[in-house]
This record gives sequence, C-alpha cells and structure tokens, in this order.
Amino acid sequence: MKKMEVGILGATGMVGQRFLSLLEHHPWFEATWLAASDRSAGKKYGEACNWRLRSPMPVAARDLEVHECKPGGAPQLIFSSLDSKVAGEIEKEFARAGHVVVSNSSNHRMDADVPLLIPEVNPDHLALVGAQRKQRGWSGMIVTNPNCTTVGLVMSLAPLERAFGLSKVMMTSMQAVSGAGYPGVPTLDILGNVIPYISGEEEKVERETQKLLGQLVDGRVQPGDFAVSAHCNRVMVEDGHTESISVALRQKVSLGELIEAWRRFRSLPQERHLPSAPQHPIVVRDEADRPQPRLDAETEHGMATVIGRVRPCPVLEFKYTALSHNTIRGAAGAALLNAELMRSEGYLD
Amino acid sequence: MKKMEVGILGATGMVGQRFLSLLEHHPWFEATWLAASDRSAGKKYGEACNWRLRSPMPVAARDLEVHECKPGGAPQLIFSSLDSKVAGEIEKEFARAGHVVVSNSSNHRMDADVPLLIPEVNPDHLALVGAQRKQRGWSGMIVTNPNCTTVGLVMSLAPLERAFGLSKVMMTSMQAVSGAGYPGVPTLDILGNVIPYISGEEEKVERETQKLLGQLVDGRVQPGDFAVSAHCNRVMVEDGHTESISVALRQKVSLGELIEAWRRFRSLPQERHLPSAPQHPIVVRDEADRPQPRLDAETEHGMATVIGRVRPCPVLEFKYTALSHNTIRGAAGAALLNAELMRSEGYLD
Amino acid sequence: MKKMEVGILGATGMVGQRFLSLLEHHPWFEATWLAASDRSAGKKYGEACNWRLRSPMPVAARDLEVHECKPGGAPQLIFSSLDSKVAGEIEKEFARAGHVVVSNSSNHRMDADVPLLIPEVNPDHLALVGAQRKQRGWSGMIVTNPNCTTVGLVMSLAPLERAFGLSKVMMTSMQAVSGAGYPGVPTLDILGNVIPYISGEEEKVERETQKLLGQLVDGRVQPGDFAVSAHCNRVMVEDGHTESISVALRQKVSLGELIEAWRRFRSLPQERHLPSAPQHPIVVRDEADRPQPRLDAETEHGMATVIGRVRPCPVLEFKYTALSHNTIRGAAGAALLNAELMRSEGYLD
Amino acid sequence: MKKMEVGILGATGMVGQRFLSLLEHHPWFEATWLAASDRSAGKKYGEACNWRLRSPMPVAARDLEVHECKPGGAPQLIFSSLDSKVAGEIEKEFARAGHVVVSNSSNHRMDADVPLLIPEVNPDHLALVGAQRKQRGWSGMIVTNPNCTTVGLVMSLAPLERAFGLSKVMMTSMQAVSGAGYPGVPTLDILGNVIPYISGEEEKVERETQKLLGQLVDGRVQPGDFAVSAHCNRVMVEDGHTESISVALRQKVSLGELIEAWRRFRSLPQERHLPSAPQHPIVVRDEADRPQPRLDAETEHGMATVIGRVRPCPVLEFKYTALSHNTIRGAAGAALLNAELMRSEGYLD
Repeated sequence: MKKMEVGILGATGMVGQRFLSLLEHHPWFEATWLAASDRSAGKKYGEACNWRLRSPMPVAARDLEVHECKPGGAPQLIFSSLDSKVAGEIEKEFARAGHVVVSNSSNHRMDADVPLLIPEVNPDHLALVGAQRKQRGWSGMIVTNPNCTTVGLVMSLAPLERAFGLSKVMMTSMQAVSGAGYPGVPTLDILGNVIPYISGEEEKVERETQKLLGQLVDGRVQPGDFAVSAHCNRVMVEDGHTESISVALRQKVSLGELIEAWRRFRSLPQERHLPSAPQHPIVVRDEADRPQPRLDAETEHGMATVIGRVRPCPVLEFKYTALSHNTIRGAAGAALLNAELMRSEGYLD
Repeated sequence: MKKMEVGILGATGMVGQRFLSLLEHHPWFEATWLAASDRSAGKKYGEACNWRLRSPMPVAARDLEVHECKPGGAPQLIFSSLDSKVAGEIEKEFARAGHVVVSNSSNHRMDADVPLLIPEVNPDHLALVGAQRKQRGWSGMIVTNPNCTTVGLVMSLAPLERAFGLSKVMMTSMQAVSGAGYPGVPTLDILGNVIPYISGEEEKVERETQKLLGQLVDGRVQPGDFAVSAHCNRVMVEDGHTESISVALRQKVSLGELIEAWRRFRSLPQERHLPSAPQHPIVVRDEADRPQPRLDAETEHGMATVIGRVRPCPVLEFKYTALSHNTIRGAAGAALLNAELMRSEGYLD
Repeated sequence: MKKMEVGILGATGMVGQRFLSLLEHHPWFEATWLAASDRSAGKKYGEACNWRLRSPMPVAARDLEVHECKPGGAPQLIFSSLDSKVAGEIEKEFARAGHVVVSNSSNHRMDADVPLLIPEVNPDHLALVGAQRKQRGWSGMIVTNPNCTTVGLVMSLAPLERAFGLSKVMMTSMQAVSGAGYPGVPTLDILGNVIPYISGEEEKVERETQKLLGQLVDGRVQPGDFAVSAHCNRVMVEDGHTESISVALRQKVSLGELIEAWRRFRSLPQERHLPSAPQHPIVVRDEADRPQPRLDAETEHGMATVIGRVRPCPVLEFKYTALSHNTIRGAAGAALLNAELMRSEGYLD
Repeated sequence: MKKMEVGILGATGMVGQRFLSLLEHHPWFEATWLAASDRSAGKKYGEACNWRLRSPMPVAARDLEVHECKPGGAPQLIFSSLDSKVAGEIEKEFARAGHVVVSNSSNHRMDADVPLLIPEVNPDHLALVGAQRKQRGWSGMIVTNPNCTTVGLVMSLAPLERAFGLSKVMMTSMQAVSGAGYPGVPTLDILGNVIPYISGEEEKVERETQKLLGQLVDGRVQPGDFAVSAHCNRVMVEDGHTESISVALRQKVSLGELIEAWRRFRSLPQERHLPSAPQHPIVVRDEADRPQPRLDAETEHGMATVIGRVRPCPVLEFKYTALSHNTIRGAAGAALLNAELMRSEGYLD
C-alpha cells in the first residue's frame, strides 16, 4: 500500500515536532510537506527547526523545504498545530481550498459545525462535517481534537458517562511545561515553583468536556448534562499532565464497578486496530502512588490514559488521579488518531 | 523582661531548625535546651545538625548540647517536632512530668481532650486542656497545631465559615518537598515529576479541618458540619504548599463579599499583637497568576495565607488558590504562635 | 545629606530590577528616572515591568514613568543594564550628553579607554576616564563592570596575583539561569539538563580577567601576564555562579598561605566603608561541600565571593570552588559599588 | 544457543535495576539468580524492589526470589553492584567459591592483580586474572569496571593517548543524581543547587584514569605517564555525567586531527560485534551547544561517549565537553560489556 502524503502546518513547533516523530514510521501516512511561519519559510527543515525532542529528528525531514502556510501544492490531508493567533484564518483557507484539516488548534473546536473528536469517545460526531461543508460551501473540512488537559479528563469520564451517567466533575490539573510550546515557560517562572494559572485553559476544559460527552441530536451536539469545574496549574514537569479528579454519578456504583468500567473500556479505534490506537485506552494502576508523569506518561506509546488512586470522595462520590501525555495523546497523537479514524470511515478517499 | 527558656524536641530536623531560626530574635522565648534522637545526643548542636535552611544556624545554638528526649533538666515550655513514630510516648512523658508540650507532631491532634489549635481560628479550644490535665492526672499538658496542609486550607475557610457557613470543601494540594523533612523526598522520585500520594495526608486534612472549625460544646469539640475532600500531591517546590480549593457555602454571597470577608479577617493574635502574628493573616492578591510558592510563601514572614484567583465554581460555588508556608505557618511558626497565645492566656505562668 | 538622583537604563530587565531593589534603601543614591525599550516607554513602571525577584517591587518605583532611552531629563548618574544589542550606541549617546554611565553591559568593556572595574581589584583603572573624555570629547564618561562569571573568578584571583603572581588559570563554570535575563532560558532546555555553552561567555571571561588584573602603565592597561581558560556551562540554578578553578602561581606557597591570602584580603571599598562593600570580600569555608549556590549565594548580601574545597591540583598547583551571586555581585551590585567608588573619588561632584 | 545464566549481587539498587533492564533481551546472558541485602532476602523481586527506571520491570524478574549474598546455588557468572561498604568481602567470597565476579563496585579496582577494564581501551589488562587466581588461590576471579565519571573521561582520552600521547588532563564533572543510587541525593540538597563535592570521587577518577591508560609490563600495570586533575560536582540531572575537559598532548596536532582520532576510533568490542558494544564508541557532535545529558545520554543505547565543543585551550592545548550515561556505560553496561569481552576471550567456558 502506497502511503498517503500529508502536510503539517506549524511543523517547527513542539507539536509539529511530535507530528513528525509519530509519522516517521507510520504505516498509512508520510509527512512530505511542511509549513511554518514566514521566519522559517524557504529554509530546510533541519535548519529552520530547533528540535527539542529526546528522539532524534527524522532523517527524511531534514531536507524538506519549509513552506509558507498557504494551500498551493500541499497534499489533501493537513495536520495543523498552528498557534491560535493565526490558526483560525489559515485553517479555513485550507479547508476552502479542499484540504482535510485535522487540527490541534483551539480556534474552531467550539464551532457548532466542527467535530471536536476523540475516536474512543465520540466518533459519531464526525458526521458534523456534512453540515460544515454544506453551510460553508467548502470542498475540504476542519476536524479538531481537544485541549491537552481535556483529553485525559474525558478519556477517564467517558466510560463512567456511558455506564452510570455523570452528574458532577471537579478537576485540578498539574500540567507539564511542554504544553506551553517552545520557548514556552521561562525557567525563572517555574524553577521550584507552581503557577496556578494558564490563560483560557479552565474555560476550554469545561466547555470541551461537555461538547465531547454530548449527544449528536438532529445534526447538533447537545452538550453533556453535567457540571464541570477545572483548576489548572503549571508545574515543573517535562511531559504528562496529572489530574486530581472527583466525580458524582447518576447511579450508585461500587468502587469495583468503577474500576471495571475503566478496565473493560474499548472502542472503535481498538476494534479497527487503528495504527495509533492504544491497545488499552485506559490503564488502571493499583499502586498507592501512581500514576506519575515521569514514570507513566509514555504508557502505550503515550496514547493511554493512566488512572490510579481510585477511592471514595467525601464531597462528590469518587476521586482518582489521571495522567495523559500532553503532546502525544493531548496533541499530535490525538490528531493522528482522528485522521486514522477519518480514513477508516472513508473521509480521505 | 527576662526571656522564658524553652526546649525543642527533635531539634535537628527540618522543623526543629525552623524553630531555632524563628526563636533566634524572639522577644519572649529563648531556646536553651535541645533534644534529638540518640544518634545526636551528647554532641554539640553544631556538630549533630545538618543545617539545611538558607539563613545561617543561630550562633547561640552551635554550642548547645543535644540532650536525649527525656524530661530531666528541660525547661517548662517544650516545642516538639518529633517524628510521629516516637512523638506519641515522649510527648506524654513530658506532659506527665509537668511540661507544657506545644507539639507539631500528628500523634495527639485528634485526641478528644487535646486542643488542635490555630490562634486566629479556634483559640477557645485551648480550654480543652482543663479536662486533659484532670483526666490524665498531668501537671503538664499537650497542645497541638495542625498538619502543614491543613493550615492554609483552614485559614482560608475560617472567615467563610464564620460569615456564611460552609457546606462543602474540595481541596487539591501541590506540596513542597520540605514538608517531608530531611533527607525526605529522594531527587530521583521528584525531579520533573509529580507524586500524587502522601501517606496519611488526605485523612489528616479532612479530619483536622472539621475539628479546627468545630464548636466547643460542653467541653467537647463538635466537628464542623460540612464535607471535606482532599487530594494531596507532592511537587518539586522547596517551601510553600499551593492548594486549589472549591467551596459551597450555606448562604448566597457575591464574589466581592467573599473577598471582603478574607480581607477584613483579623483575630485574637492580631488584637493582642502576639510577636509571631502576621499583621494580615490573609492576603488576597488580584493578579491573575498568584499566589506562587517561589514568590509568595514568605509573605508576612511566612505566617500569612495568600489567596488568589477567586472566581465562581461551576460545581460548588467558588474556587480559589491558597498558599501557605509549610514549615513556618504550617509547622514551627504555628506552634510558636500557639505558645504565644497560651502565654497571653496565662497558661505559662 | 540629600540623596543623589540616579537613572536606570534597561530598568524592566532582571538586572534593572536588581538595581531598583539594591537602591531601595541606599544611603547615597535614589532611583528617580527609569528607561526601557519602546515597548515599555510611556507606561508606569508597575505596569511595564514583569517583576521577578522574590523581594517585592519597591513601592516608590511603581508609579515612576518609564522613559525612552534618550538623555533628555535624565540625572547625571546613569546605571545601564541594557541588552548588548542596543547598549553600545545608547551609552555613548548618554556619555556624550554629559552623563556618567556606569554600565553592566558588555559593549565597551574591552575599549582601551574604558575602565573595566572591580573596586577591590583595580580601582586605579578608573583613571582611564581622563583619556576617554579627552579623546572622545565627552563631558560624560562610561565605566563598566565585568561579566557575571568573571567577577567571582577575578575576586578569587586578585589576592593570589598580588601576593604570589599568577601563571595559569583554568575555570569551569556552572551558571545560574538568572544570568540569561528574562524570559531567558526556556524550561524545556534546562529541566534536568546541563547546557555546555553560553554564547561569547568564555571569550569574555578570558579577556576580561586579563584586563582586570592588568597594570595601568602610561595610561594604558597592560593585560595580566598569565593564561586563562574558561569552560562555561548553564545549570538549573536560580542565582549564583559556581566555578571549579585550578591555578598555577609564580611562587611556591602552601595551602595555608593561599587561604590566608584570601582571608586577609581587604581593599579600598572596605577601607572607605562604601555602602555596598561586603565586610569580607572573600569568605573561605572549611566544610567539605561548600560553597553551594542555594545556601551561599547571598553571603554578605550577595556581594562576597565564597571559596571552598581548597586543595592541591595535580595538573596546575591548587584547585578550589568559588561562588558569586551573578545578578548582585556579578551585575547590579557591581555597578553600584563602582558608582560608590567613583563618588568617593570625586567623579560625581 | 542456550543462554548462560547469570546472577546479580545488589539486584534491587539502581545499578542492579539497570543490569536487569539491559539483560532483559540479551542474546547471551539471562538473569536467573538475584541477591540483595538481608532486608530483601526471601522476598520476590517484584516486592523487594522499588523499581525506579522509566522502562518497566522485566516480567521475568518479578517472581524471582531474592537471595542472600552468599555463593551457594548461584550461577558461575556474577554481576556485582553492591554497595562498597560490603562489596569487598562478599566479592572475594564469591571468587573464592569459583565464581567469575564482574563488578561495578570500587573496592577492588585498584588492587594490583585485579583488571580495571574498558573493553575498547585496555582489553589486554584482562590477563591480570592469571596472577590473581594464582596468588589468591582462587578458582574464580574478580574483574572490575571504572567509576561512572572515569568512563567518559577515559573513553575520550584513549584515542588521544594512542595516537598522540597524553601529558596533562583537567576534568570538571557535572554529575547526575542517579550516580548516587537510591534514595541517594535528597531533593532539599540539590533543588536549584550545585553540590561541589562527591566523597572520594576525584581520587577515583585520577587514579583509575592512570591505571586504565597504563601499560601491562611484566604482568603489572604501569600507570599512564600523565597528570590528571578532577573537580567533581553534582547537578540536578537524572542520567548522564557531563564533563568539561582540557588536555595537553605529547605531539603537536591540529583540531581536525584530534576530531579525526575520535571519529575513527574502533576497538575490539566493535570488531567482535559484542552485543552491548556501541557501533560508534565515540560520537563527535558539531553543534555549538552539545552534548547535553537530557538529549544525548542515550546515544547508542547509552553506551557511546558523546563529545562536542572541541576547541583550543589557552592553558593546556585543547578543550572539549564529553558526556557518558552514568548508569549504563558508567555502570551496568560497562560490566556487561566486560563480561561479553571475557566470554569472547574464553574466560567463561
């Protein structure tokens, strides 16, 4: 099978680097077209990019030319990890020009006709693109994945919502610095410190969670009928967002039933064996002190959500800790899995 | 006025060092008697102690002999920062021998006849010592201060409980490594990491909060009538526990009234100008990204609780971030202020 | 005595903040005029500055207007901590306009007619300003202090050069992130890492050391007649540059004589009791594992150089560790002490 | 080919964990016998060991019983990573009982009849075991690898000594915390800090370097005829010792010849394709700011020494930065490669 060529908008950033790294040995897709800001355009990727991942830059990427963020010459499938300051217009321009834009940027996530997608959670929301293309008159489309903090939360909530119904969700995050991109967080701000604020993050988590767990009714997403509150903090961690979560459910269940619901959770990406799908989307650990970002963020190649410390909550009903890799499952890997779902659904034919 | 001599149990530990540092220029008390484990007993303090504070070891402490943790020869007033493995029996032995033991250890905090005290919050609970001495037949007494994580939480809750009544409290902590003592947390455990577990901590926070905000009725503490849930995490911070808190109140109030209740909060230690009392026990900051442990833990010499990010909570009613210095307000400074209150109440005459 | 008004170029940067902090209670000088980049000009300092020091912003600074970096209206004495990209021209413009520019920037340090000054080491080099003013036709002048890494090295070498003569110097630095300014070093670059390179730093250390320890002969500085080699590394430390140093001397001396030379070192700033002069410019510690930046950088208010681990070197003759606070003694405090020397020498009358 | 069974002394420690991890898929050896301190003896490895590596504990190790450190029942080949407090006697006991002890402990490294071995550097020193067995009357033997800091230094020096002759070596290390084992360095000691002292380390580096680069003459090692000076520092890095090195050579060479000597360096382990041998024992990087421990420590599975920043040294002749993974190439991987060499030389038949 010939691999499908794909392009990356924002290829030199932290998430762009993850895209390239995850695509290096991908069985379906091959990154052949890279674009970034005007500062980088015209250079070779190897020169333009300050590569920050521990794994080396894919050899094939080094000599690719970095293009301007304009549609001409780009392949059909485009991953976007553009800064939200510019992503809004550029992504629309690509969709208008016929490209399938699978975006990690926040700009269009809450648009009523744009799917905000986690393949394990709400694959049916993909159907929104029909209305999107019609209303907007586009030959292409935009599909988005959630914020890096939302993903771990929603992965842990989805089996509970399905099995028992959610009523209330309280989440406090301790987020890794890689989530802020590069150069991102200055060392003088975070060395031996906690920053209890990330601009716009709490609002994103609260709204995206309800959209993701909402029902598609008459072509519109009915937001999930539960309350969500987020406290977002930055800590001195490289990769992996840790979340302290409390939930109240609509049904009385035991701790054992809760854990069982997580452990048996499988979904479409697992059934279809999508290349980036984790075998176990949720891993529940029994140790008293796990998950920990340094030890557990890369579980299932960074695509699993790791849950631990499941116990009763005196205020809501249950509390637990969840961990998710913020630049893999929470960004590049999320978009990649979205594209794999879309391909298996025939959207990329 | 001649200073009163005081002793310190556990003088070589992190909290013991804080005691010595805070007592160095204290107007009422003077540390003249130090005790520690058998390993240190018999040595000079300067040799026995691996001093870890940034401020230098008080000169007067260097040549003091380190005693065994036995009552003979010790002054009346004893501060205890012993490890909880041994504190239980030793503190009772000192109280039995007539000493006033002002303890930072957790062992006796939840004993029905032992005051668990924050002078700004429940100074009337001190009256429990009457029953304590009578029942136990002691000429001395034991008075305790709360866990380092409880203090900041309760300082922030007390004005709300007083003014509006509390109904529900959810707290997620990001705790400094100094709270685990020395050698404490191994670097390999916390470098670039979060540990979502501190043994026994959540139970302490939940129970102590209810005792501290309880009412003294017929010589017994009626625990506060509200639910508390704690998630405790360790992060790579030196000093200062940061807490993401959500509360539900018994009365409808505005954000402004909430902030006003904190800002106008003054209590007995302020009225009596106790030497270690912060002028403003609660400092509310307006910036979007404060408090931060690196910048704010030492507010009012580490004795204030700093609150910020006050905003509505979609699940309970309000959410905010609170910060408190864990080895000052949360340990040595807490015990010191307790002793000052006791002196001003005539318990040390 | 009325305080002398001073201005600060680059007032919003890390070193600018240190200037304001050190000047807050200064007995001779008062910061009344602040300037920064165009982005900040016109705002109040409290709004323009992202204050990053642990000590709070001086109240008097908050409402000062931030000016453009142009001479009109500025006081006679100007401290400069401008970025080297712009410092060269701006400092000359101020000197031409009659200002005494006491600069921490690197641009003019190696100019033959500009004093590169450490008041304890080469106060006589100040005489260079005579020629400077004449040749350049300036009514003002420029005087500089060395690079933050050079200062600790040269402070430790000066007593050896004076007493025994230096022949070879090898220095490896482990430099704090605050030396790179703000935002400075990205967290993703330094978290759990060492960066073995700081652009231009090694060259600065090697040349500045020779100029500082050189002799003023016929109005020119004859560079010190010894070899210097520097390895410069960045580590995850907030403040304080640690240096592993080996030296060969021109005279045979014992370890005891070496230490004695450091311990008895006093100089002009100490004799004249200049306000910012450390009482002991060099502090030698006997412990096996000191100095350490976290514990020792603030020795003598950050103005002392702390030396430890003095021992024979199998390759050169002696080796030791030196520590110096990079934004105090290595930047703002250095310039301040220069200005104090200049005042005591009558240059500011 | 049936795998050879091997035992590990000190299996629960940091280096013991590395042994197990490196042996998990080893083509020649299989870890079947584990021993540790009395505290662990009798338990299953999965219970006894606080596994700290990012890669998970090998499944096969979990249920192995942890033995006492006594020879009975152990396989012929024994890897030792015992604490030096107990390694001396225990290793002798195993050698006496006929075991081939391949040790990472420091106790016997400097014994005249014990090979201190780096297979790329001095494979001929292995011949010392003949005299060792004869003199000591052992049927087994002890073979050692160098200290974790020595390895990177000597790997970088060996090609220079061979090609040009060494005259002087100056090394300043910035060492990772994993080198101190677990629990090892307390967080309060190293957070935002540098510790300029590691007990006994500098002496080890200086003596071991001379033994490793010495000549085997008449059955004795003639130490290398060059001076070595080491400054050893601890920094907040997880894995990978970074070293700033200056050298003087016996022959005039150009920078290009130096780099060429490193790049073309291959040795016995490469020629014989030993399973753990890095393809390129030395990797020279051209970037201005490499090697960095976070990015480069795992080069060639942690078995290569990475060199960068090669430039002239004003005091000696050349200076450069070298990096080596301290628990792989500097400990478990070093011993493993030694055992592979011994097997290929027929010592394990």
